[in-house]
Amino acid sequence: MNVIDQSVAKAMARSVSTITEETTASEIAGLFAERGIGSAVVVDPDTDAPIGIVTESDIMRQVALSADITSVHAGSFMSAPVITTSSDESIHKAASLMKEHSIRRLLVVDDDDIVGMLTTTDLTHYLPRLRNTILRDRDDLVGQ
Amino acid sequence: MNVIDQSVAKAMARSVSTITEETTASEIAGLFAERGIGSAVVVDPDTDAPIGIVTESDIMRQVALSADITSVHAGSFMSAPVITTSSDESIHKAASLMKEHSIRRLLVVDDDDIVGMLTTTDLTHYLPRLRNTILRDRDDLVGQ
Repeated sequence: MNVIDQSVAKAMARSVSTITEETTASEIAGLFAERGIGSAVVVDPDTDAPIGIVTESDIMRQVALSADITSVHAGSFMSAPVITTSSDESIHKAASLMKEHSIRRLLVVDDDDIVGMLTTTDLTHYLPRLRNTILRDRDDLVGQ
Repeated sequence: MNVIDQSVAKAMARSVSTITEETTASEIAGLFAERGIGSAVVVDPDTDAPIGIVTESDIMRQVALSADITSVHAGSFMSAPVITTSSDESIHKAASLMKEHSIRRLLVVDDDDIVGMLTTTDLTHYLPRLRNTILRDRDDLVGQ
């Protein structure tokens, strides 16, 4: 298997922050600052099913619209549905999916359970490792 | 040359939005929404030299701190100095630099002139193309 065909599981983050449709924009901004994160998944509180996602850009848009961020709720400005992938999908296909949808994050779902999040930052951190493996791979081939 | 050693110039965006230290957080939020961007470079209005950068996360932090975003200025909360690279730097070194500094953007500067911006999104969009070239490269090697 070529290294670039490795799975999403190798590069994704396993911790995902969740909120509900009722969470306000200012609460979300506080959560992002406190945890140093840039997105939260909106889940149905009864089933834990992902129903949307809120990113820094979504909060920014509310600020730009001069919305009252202490009262505007995630449900009214989240992006939905969430674009998802599975942990055994290949990294290059995940990258293509992000490009296709012009998004920076993919929620990773296996058998209806949220198992992680893959971001453009995760893929960038993966690049130098990818290069080393490619060069080793190439040396092996040339040595054959 | 291995494809992953290709230059930053191949993947970077050539348009960079600039602001000054006087620009307010709400003006910046408006600019981000209007242009669909996530960062702006703070420049010295006399010399055009980059002195800092403001990202969505920086604005979010001001919102989380309940700052008055109509009066707080870029100069008071920008990240400085800006981490830069040059357009002839290799993509994998740029990716390593982002990881090292925990940042998602690198300003591209050649001979003191801002020539572009490289983001984790640009690198992600580059991945599928990278894969195709790697596979072709590998076929060539195996065919030798």
